[in-house]
Amino acid sequence: MNIAILGYGVVGSGVVEVINTNKESINMRAGREINIKHVLDLRKFPGDPIEDILTDDFDKIINDDDVDIIVEVMGGLEPAYTFVKQALEKGKSVVTSNKELVAKYGAGLLQLAKENSTNFLFEASVGGGIPIIRPLNESLTADEIYEITGILNGTTNFILTKMEEEGRPFEEVLKEAQELGYAEADPEADVEGHDACRKIAILSSLAFARQVNFEEIPTEGITKVSKGDMEYASKMGYTIKLLGRCKRKGKEIFASVSPVMIPLEHPLAPVKDVFNAILIKGNVIGEVMFYGKGAGKLPTASAVVADIVEAAKHKGINIISHWSKEKVEMMEAGKIPASYFVRVQKKDGVKEIIEDTFLGVKWVENEDYPEELAFITQEDEEDLQKDRFEKLKDHAYVISSINIEG
Amino acid sequence: MNIAILGYGVVGSGVVEVINTNKESINMRAGREINIKHVLDLRKFPGDPIEDILTDDFDKIINDDDVDIIVEVMGGLEPAYTFVKQALEKGKSVVTSNKELVAKYGAGLLQLAKENSTNFLFEASVGGGIPIIRPLNESLTADEIYEITGILNGTTNFILTKMEEEGRPFEEVLKEAQELGYAEADPEADVEGHDACRKIAILSSLAFARQVNFEEIPTEGITKVSKGDMEYASKMGYTIKLLGRCKRKGKEIFASVSPVMIPLEHPLAPVKDVFNAILIKGNVIGEVMFYGKGAGKLPTASAVVADIVEAAKHKGINIISHWSKEKVEMMEAGKIPASYFVRVQKKDGVKEIIEDTFLGVKWVENEDYPEELAFITQEDEEDLQKDRFEKLKDHAYVISSINIEG
Repeated sequence: MNIAILGYGVVGSGVVEVINTNKESINMRAGREINIKHVLDLRKFPGDPIEDILTDDFDKIINDDDVDIIVEVMGGLEPAYTFVKQALEKGKSVVTSNKELVAKYGAGLLQLAKENSTNFLFEASVGGGIPIIRPLNESLTADEIYEITGILNGTTNFILTKMEEEGRPFEEVLKEAQELGYAEADPEADVEGHDACRKIAILSSLAFARQVNFEEIPTEGITKVSKGDMEYASKMGYTIKLLGRCKRKGKEIFASVSPVMIPLEHPLAPVKDVFNAILIKGNVIGEVMFYGKGAGKLPTASAVVADIVEAAKHKGINIISHWSKEKVEMMEAGKIPASYFVRVQKKDGVKEIIEDTFLGVKWVENEDYPEELAFITQEDEEDLQKDRFEKLKDHAYVISSINIEG
Repeated sequence: MNIAILGYGVVGSGVVEVINTNKESINMRAGREINIKHVLDLRKFPGDPIEDILTDDFDKIINDDDVDIIVEVMGGLEPAYTFVKQALEKGKSVVTSNKELVAKYGAGLLQLAKENSTNFLFEASVGGGIPIIRPLNESLTADEIYEITGILNGTTNFILTKMEEEGRPFEEVLKEAQELGYAEADPEADVEGHDACRKIAILSSLAFARQVNFEEIPTEGITKVSKGDMEYASKMGYTIKLLGRCKRKGKEIFASVSPVMIPLEHPLAPVKDVFNAILIKGNVIGEVMFYGKGAGKLPTASAVVADIVEAAKHKGINIISHWSKEKVEMMEAGKIPASYFVRVQKKDGVKEIIEDTFLGVKWVENEDYPEELAFITQEDEEDLQKDRFEKLKDHAYVISSINIEG
C-alpha cells in the first residue's frame, strides 16, 4: 500500500517518523505494508532520508496509479482543497489533519469519497492524537447527542494554566509560549479562538449529521482574561478555560467559543497545559470524556497514521459517515442563554442599580479587591444580557465580564 | 435488519429501550431499519411490550434466517458460549456485553467471526458506555501501547469515593451500595477485583494483539482498605483507587489488579463515584484517557446498540481485529516491580529495622496516629518486597500495606 505525503512540515515529518518507528506493528494492524512513495514539498531537504522521494510536482503523485492514499498535511485551504478533491475523484483515499479544510468542505469531501468508493478521514483535525472523530462516527451512534464541550486548543490552555498557577498576566505568558514553540509568531488563530471555532464546528457537524458553519459561531478569545479574573476564579473555587461549546435545545443548535469560568468539580477543570479534552453528553450514555495531547508533532502524527491504517483496511470500501451539506438550524446568537461573572467599580448606588437591572444576582466577596463589586448574573438570553450591560455602563465602570457555568 | 436479544435482564431491557427511544437516529446511522424480532428468556413478562416476541427456545432464533444479529446479554459462560458460537458459525453477527465470555473465549470467537465473514463485537464488555474497545482496535493503531491503567469497576469506585469523602468504613458503605442497587447481594465479583481483572485482561489482549489470561493476573480487591488508610492518603495528597494495570517491560508484560494510592494530580484521581476511566500510554500519542459511566442499564445498552449499528453497517464484511490465541509472555508475578505505603505499630528499635530491611524509605508523618510509624518503600521486585515484609513481621506489627504510585 503506497502513500504520498503532501507537506513535509511538523506533521508531515512526524508521520514519516511514526511510520518508521512503529513499522512492524503498523503493518500488522493495516494487514499490509505501508510504504511512503512520495513526499511533496516546494522546499529542499538536503541530507534528509526522504530526499530521494521528494517532489515539488503534484501531477506526478496524482497520476501515479500505485499511490493508494494521499496524506494532506500542508494546511490552509488552497491548494490543499484542489489536491484532495482530485485525489478522491481518482478513487484514492485521503487522510488529513487540516481543520480549515474539513470545517469548510468536510460534507462535500465525504460525499465525494462515498461516490468514489473511497475514504476521506480527518481524525487529526480535532484534538490532535485524541480519538474523537471515529468515536463520534462509529461509537456514539446509539445516542442522540445534546451537548459537546471541549478544551480544543492546546496553546490557549497552556497560557491560561500558566496565568492561573503563576499569577502572571496574559502578554507575559504568551511571550513565553512563543519562546517554547507552543504559540506561533502570529498567535491570532489560537488566542482569538478561531482554531477552537473550526474544531467545534467539525464536532457539531458530525454529532448532528448536518452542516454547522464555523462563520456562524460567536467566537471570543482569551486576550481579555486578566490576572484579576483568575484570582477571583481561584477564590470562588473556579478555573477559567477557553471552551468550544455546542448544545441542542429543541430543534435548534447553538454553539460558541469563549473563555468560561467553570467550577473545580467540572470534568474539564483538571485539564491543564497543552492537554485537550472533549466532553460529550448523550441521552442514553450520559457523559463521556476523551482526554489527551491536543497538539504536537507526534500525537498529531499518531492520529494521521491511525487514519492511514483505517484507509488501508478499507481499500475500495467507503466507511459510512453522516455529515450532510444541509445546514443545522442554528439559534440566533442573541437568543443563546448565558450567565456572567461581572466586576464593577464600587460607587454609591451601583449595588441597587445592579440588582434592579439584572433582576437578582449572586454577590461575590473578595477582600483583595476592596474597590470593586463582583457578582454572578442569572442565566438569560444573550440579547437581554447585552441590554443590561449597556444600562449598567451608563452608571458604573465595568472592569470585566466573563461567561460562567455552574 | 432483524436482531434477536438473548436475555431480558437489566441490559437486555435497556437495549430495547434505547432502540425504541432513538429509533430515528439509530436507523439513520445504521443505514437501515433495526427491528427486534425475538427476545430469549426463560421467564415470562406478562404485559410487557416484548411479550409477543418472547421465546424460551434458542433453536427458533438460530434457525431463523431472517435474523442477522444476535445480541447476547445473558452473562455467564454457558449457555452463552454455545449460543454465540452457533450464531457465528451460521454467519450471524454477535454483539455481547459479557466480559467473562470475552475474556475467556474472545480470541477464538474473533477468529470464528473472521472465518464466517461476520463480526463479534464487545464494546459493552469493558467500561460500560465508554468507547474503548473500538478506539483500541481502530484508533490507537499507530502506537505501540506500553501501559494501560484503568478504574474499571463502578461499584468499588463508588465505595472508595464514599469512604474517602464521608470517612466511613468499608462494610458500612458496601451495605449502602447494596441498598442503592450499585452492588450485588453477593458483591464478591466486584469487591474482590474479579470483574476488573477480566476487563484488564480484555484490554491488554487487544493492546498487545495476543492472549492475556485473566487467571494469571495477580488480583486483590478493596476489602482490606481501611478508614485509616484513606485518612493517611488524604493527608499525603493522595487518593486510593482500585486499578487494573498492565505494562510492557521489554518483551514481557505484567498485569495486576489492586488498590493503589495515587497522587491527586494523577489523571485518574478525579474519577469518582460509579464513573470509570481508562488511561492508555503509547509511544507516539503520549497519554490518552477515556472517561464515562462504566456501568448501569442505559450506558451499557448504549454501547451494545452502537455495536448493533456497526454490525448492521458491516453485514458480510469482517471488521479486522487483532487478538490471537497465542499467549503474551507474562512476567512472573514475583518479578513485578512494586512500591508500598506501610503502617507499622511503634516500638523501640522498629525504625532502625525498617531502614535496614527496606534499604531506604520515605517516612510519612501523621500526628493523628501517634502510635504508628508510616513509610513509603522504594520500588523493587514483588518477591524481594515480600521477603522484607516477612522479616519486618518478625519484629513489628504491620497494620496495613498498600501499593503506591508516583
